[in-house]
Amino acid sequence: MNKLTRRTFLGSSAFLSVAGVFGFMPALSKSRQKKKNMFVHHVYFWLKNPDSAADKAKLIEGLNTLKAIKQIKLAHIGVPASTNREVIERGYAVSWLLFFDNQQQQDVYQEHPVHLKFVENYAHLWEKVIVYDSVDA
Amino acid sequence: MNKLTRRTFLGSSAFLSVAGVFGFMPALSKSRQKKKNMFVHHVYFWLKNPDSAADKAKLIEGLNTLKAIKQIKLAHIGVPASTNREVIERGYAVSWLLFFDNQQQQDVYQEHPVHLKFVENYAHLWEKVIVYDSVDA
Repeated sequence: MNKLTRRTFLGSSAFLSVAGVFGFMPALSKSRQKKKNMFVHHVYFWLKNPDSAADKAKLIEGLNTLKAIKQIKLAHIGVPASTNREVIERGYAVSWLLFFDNQQQQDVYQEHPVHLKFVENYAHLWEKVIVYDSVDA
Repeated sequence: MNKLTRRTFLGSSAFLSVAGVFGFMPALSKSRQKKKNMFVHHVYFWLKNPDSAADKAKLIEGLNTLKAIKQIKLAHIGVPASTNREVIERGYAVSWLLFFDNQQQQDVYQEHPVHLKFVENYAHLWEKVIVYDSVDA
């Protein structure tokens, strides 16, 4: 995403879209049927070498390259928090959370050359991924 | 969250915080070390009666009550998308995704009366939950 795109994004649809999706605008929360059908793509990565800080850093480096894909509306790279209850899954190394405006945008992302390159260059690092794709309830 | 709070939220920190976290503001993306340590709390619910549309609707009703908790910065209620690859988990009924400014805010949410009431009133609906808590990588 270049600077111009970022600024355009920032100045126009970003806030409205986020506010609409999450119901923080009173006007929009009263007319839910008009909101977009946001697509949430959440990927959890388990590393082949779970104790390798270098491999984790490398994977994060790779995920950062994906942020160039303009179909992504919001992206968050995470690592397990220190919370620790029975229901909490803490075995993964990296969380990769994306928001798209709809499934079609996510499909474009999946086939995007930058994404294919990422898989080619970084897939050797992970042993397992679990993906949760969800849309507005 | 009352109207005033919502408006205040909308008018002040909401956009900056989202933009900062996700790196959509060029200025902020250049100074990552200054961004907040966002806390992402993602819960997936499996129902006792996975085929019951009524139970699913009931659970979603319950989750909507949680949106009154003001520590929540962003909330998204989802259901599995139609995507279907081997790595995609599709067995859950409802996805509950929250953003907090930090872990302390999430801790307040966990012990909030509205949350405790939710567990009391709706826990009979689910068979299993998996929680992924993550913080900025």
